[in-house]
Amino acid sequence: MLEAVLAELGEHGYDGLTMEAVAARAGVHRATVYRRWNDVGGLLADVLDAAGDDDWGPPDTGSLEGDLAALNQEIQTAMAAEPPIMAALIAASFRSEKAARAQQRLWEDRYTRCEIVVARAAHRGELPPRTDARRLLIAATAPLYHHLVLLRTPPDPALPGHAARTAALAAAAGAFAEPPSANTTPG
Amino acid sequence: MLEAVLAELGEHGYDGLTMEAVAARAGVHRATVYRRWNDVGGLLADVLDAAGDDDWGPPDTGSLEGDLAALNQEIQTAMAAEPPIMAALIAASFRSEKAARAQQRLWEDRYTRCEIVVARAAHRGELPPRTDARRLLIAATAPLYHHLVLLRTPPDPALPGHAARTAALAAAAGAFAEPPSANTTPG
Repeated sequence: MLEAVLAELGEHGYDGLTMEAVAARAGVHRATVYRRWNDVGGLLADVLDAAGDDDWGPPDTGSLEGDLAALNQEIQTAMAAEPPIMAALIAASFRSEKAARAQQRLWEDRYTRCEIVVARAAHRGELPPRTDARRLLIAATAPLYHHLVLLRTPPDPALPGHAARTAALAAAAGAFAEPPSANTTPG
Repeated sequence: MLEAVLAELGEHGYDGLTMEAVAARAGVHRATVYRRWNDVGGLLADVLDAAGDDDWGPPDTGSLEGDLAALNQEIQTAMAAEPPIMAALIAASFRSEKAARAQQRLWEDRYTRCEIVVARAAHRGELPPRTDARRLLIAATAPLYHHLVLLRTPPDPALPGHAARTAALAAAAGAFAEPPSANTTPG
C-alpha cells in the first residue's frame, strides 16, 4: 500500500495523489483505504513514518569532514532522484499537517542518528570540548536543503563537500562550542 | 489588488486564496482579475515580484558577524510575523510553478543585494582574498530557513547570532576562499 502511495506521488505529485488511485494501484477496495488512512495526509504520514523505520546510519569515513561530505552527497542524490519521491514528500508537507508532522519526526530521527558522526569526531580529538552536535549537523546540511528545496538551484557536485568543509572549519574554530548559557541569552 | 492577495493569503492560506475572494476584497470585477492574472499563481508571482521592487538593503553594523546577525534577525522576524505572509508565500511556491519562479527571482535579488556585506568586510580586511560572497551568504542564512521552513522548529532567539558567528568563523578560516578550480572539481 505504501509503495502504491510512493508510486502515485512520484508519477503525479501531490495534486494527482488520490485515495482512489492508491487503492486501485494496490488492488484493494477504496473503502478499506479510507477506513484505515482517512485522507491523503494520513497515507503520506504513514509513508514518512515507514521511511524512518530502517537501520540507516550515517557514513563512517574516518574524518568529520569526510562523514559530513558523504552525508551531504546522500542528501543531494536523494533529492535529485527520479522519480522525485523525497522532493515530493517535502512539498507535500506544505499541503498536509499530518505529513508535516511526520516529516518533522523523520528529520528529528535522522539528525539524532547522525549525532554519532560528531561523537566519533570528538573521540578522535577533532573538536573543541562541548561541541553542540545538532547545531553542527544543521550547519553542515542546511545549505543542501536551502539550495535544492527552497532556492531550487540545480545540483552542484561541489556543494556537498563545500558545505561539509565549511561546517568542519567552523567547528574547529569553536562555532558550536558556546558555553551553555549562550543558548538562553536573548538576541 | 496585490494587498488584497496578501490579506487573503494571510487569513486563509493558499487553500483559501481564490480569484473571486481577491476580486471581492479589492472591489473589482472578477473578470478583470482573470483577464490580467489568469490564475492564483499569476497573482502570487506579481505579489512576489512587487515585494522585490523596493529599496531594501542589508544592515550595516560595522562588522561581518554583526551584519549577518542583523540580516538573520530580519529573516526570523519576517518568518514569525502574523499574519504569516512570508511563510505562506514560501508554502505557495510548492503549489504553483509561477510562484516558485517568482520566489526564486526574489531570493536571487535579495542575495545579490547582500553581497555588499561581504564586499564591506573584505574592504575592512576581515576576509581572506577571493572569498565567495554568495557561498558565505548562503551558509549564514541557510540554518534560519532550514529551521523555520523545513524543520518547523519554533523561532530561537539565539539562532540568528549563532548562524552568523558560524559563517563568520568559517569565512575567517578560509571556507569560502577556494581556488577557482575547486568549483569545477567533481565530488
